[in-house]
Amino acid sequence: MRIGIYGYGNLGRGVECAVKCHTDITLVGVFTRRDPESVKTVSGVPVYHANSIADFKDKIDVLIICGGSATDLPEMTPALARDFNVIDSFDTHAKIPNHFKRVDDAARENGHTALISSGWDPGLFSIMRVYSEAVLPNGKDYTFWGRGVSQGHSDAIRRIDGVLDARQYTVPIESAMDAVRGGRCPEFSTREKHKRECYVVACDGADTARIEKEIKEMPNYFADYDTSVTFVSMEELRANHAGLPHGGSVIRNGRTGFDDENTHTVEFSLRLDSNPEFTASVLVAYARAIYRMHGRGDIGCKTVFDVAPADLSMMSADELRKHLL
Amino acid sequence: MRIGIYGYGNLGRGVECAVKCHTDITLVGVFTRRDPESVKTVSGVPVYHANSIADFKDKIDVLIICGGSATDLPEMTPALARDFNVIDSFDTHAKIPNHFKRVDDAARENGHTALISSGWDPGLFSIMRVYSEAVLPNGKDYTFWGRGVSQGHSDAIRRIDGVLDARQYTVPIESAMDAVRGGRCPEFSTREKHKRECYVVACDGADTARIEKEIKEMPNYFADYDTSVTFVSMEELRANHAGLPHGGSVIRNGRTGFDDENTHTVEFSLRLDSNPEFTASVLVAYARAIYRMHGRGDIGCKTVFDVAPADLSMMSADELRKHLL
Repeated sequence: MRIGIYGYGNLGRGVECAVKCHTDITLVGVFTRRDPESVKTVSGVPVYHANSIADFKDKIDVLIICGGSATDLPEMTPALARDFNVIDSFDTHAKIPNHFKRVDDAARENGHTALISSGWDPGLFSIMRVYSEAVLPNGKDYTFWGRGVSQGHSDAIRRIDGVLDARQYTVPIESAMDAVRGGRCPEFSTREKHKRECYVVACDGADTARIEKEIKEMPNYFADYDTSVTFVSMEELRANHAGLPHGGSVIRNGRTGFDDENTHTVEFSLRLDSNPEFTASVLVAYARAIYRMHGRGDIGCKTVFDVAPADLSMMSADELRKHLL
Repeated sequence: MRIGIYGYGNLGRGVECAVKCHTDITLVGVFTRRDPESVKTVSGVPVYHANSIADFKDKIDVLIICGGSATDLPEMTPALARDFNVIDSFDTHAKIPNHFKRVDDAARENGHTALISSGWDPGLFSIMRVYSEAVLPNGKDYTFWGRGVSQGHSDAIRRIDGVLDARQYTVPIESAMDAVRGGRCPEFSTREKHKRECYVVACDGADTARIEKEIKEMPNYFADYDTSVTFVSMEELRANHAGLPHGGSVIRNGRTGFDDENTHTVEFSLRLDSNPEFTASVLVAYARAIYRMHGRGDIGCKTVFDVAPADLSMMSADELRKHLL
């Protein structure tokens, strides 16, 4: 199975790392909108300009699109689904139905298979919501994120006047998680589930009180949360906040029994040293599934909900039944 | 969708409870090898003799077989797969390949769809091993069971001379779980992962020292574990050990990055008040999937690995993408 990486940021590099563990996958190349001469891949795999992608129509089985959800993927995924089987990590929740429709149309018209919104949320977390809801319909689920770096929130802080750099951690409230893990089904406000910790490098002489106020009052991003702001030097930020860890938990409590007398708790948790590398690892496993589904004539746009677990694995059906069932 | 319950013990009653949460499912009846007059269902659904099952060939879409793995299911599932779409919870690990083959042959010859080894282990835990292994091939997974009642171990104690009744709890060793959760991949002996707690009611005048010795030295069941034996009265056993709680965790640690520098931990945990009711709840969700797969002409024997999450859910594909992705 031959894959290509379209877009070479943190996620693209994560895919490049991940494929080395998959003995059935060959990486054909990296495609970038930058000058290919200026891009050095970690593994030494060739770099091509994105404009040359059409030349690889018959040389790539699945193209892994590693662009941003805001502006890249809404254009790239439908366009590339005309010539390739594709997979992306589109995560703008409200726009998923529209993105799905556009990718589905492009893929079907050209006999390709596509999968959108892979990764861990959307992705593995979504699957866990489906499994636990199907098994325990009489229940309630909760998703907690963190402790981890939110790139969107970090970017929002960086746009404030007087800020040189920033890193924002989303932190789940332990007492809320403990209540849910104890089998209870409380209603939480936004503030009761997560808090936000910001580490900010201010320009020399900037008004830090004004910056802190602007962060804490920023609508959507921070106003609904308890937010802490800590000013640090650039050296401290680089030394202590260079990584992109993340994680979280999906927890569902459900009741069974004729009088709903029994409670069950299903929990799926991730603790990730590197959000982009783990997301990339999920994309690679789903690229394998897309390749197999396309081989069976199953075309159009899919999501993680449409993929049977066996299609993700390097093992054969016999091996899976023998070793993992 | 019309289902039947074949076998009416704890698991059959669990299925009867579970279906009331599924608005798309009608329960046709319970089938028993006992005298139907002697069996009262909790919901009042009719009880028929197992011998009359063939009369229901066109009245039941999926038959949920609630028998034991030791002697019932190896006979029942292949036999019933000739006339019905069937599902079971066969859990004798070493015999799964053979059971699969026999059920697959019977189902294919007659155009039916079957699913074996559903539940939570085998079942949801197996799925989690596949997802986490596919995403993090460079890693190691661990399964911990409990704290929960093992019926097989309780039965083994009951067979000892001088024992009136017994309840055995499988208990995971917290320090082992913590080591794995911390990202390490140790090798554990059997004794280092789980311990066994036994609550035993002895006959009047029985030699409790001899009973305790027989339990602790029983090969396969107890000899490889640290086992505690507590003698209790029948009243205490009934008051404090009447339930069938269980649970456990599947944890995988995997590494990514060009120098394997990043560690990720994936954990799936269950805490169940009632093992049979939760297992039954999983069976009902998979019965829906089997019904749909059969409707698409997908015949033969399946396992949980072959079922896409979407097929388990009452929601449509559109609703799933909108609400759970």
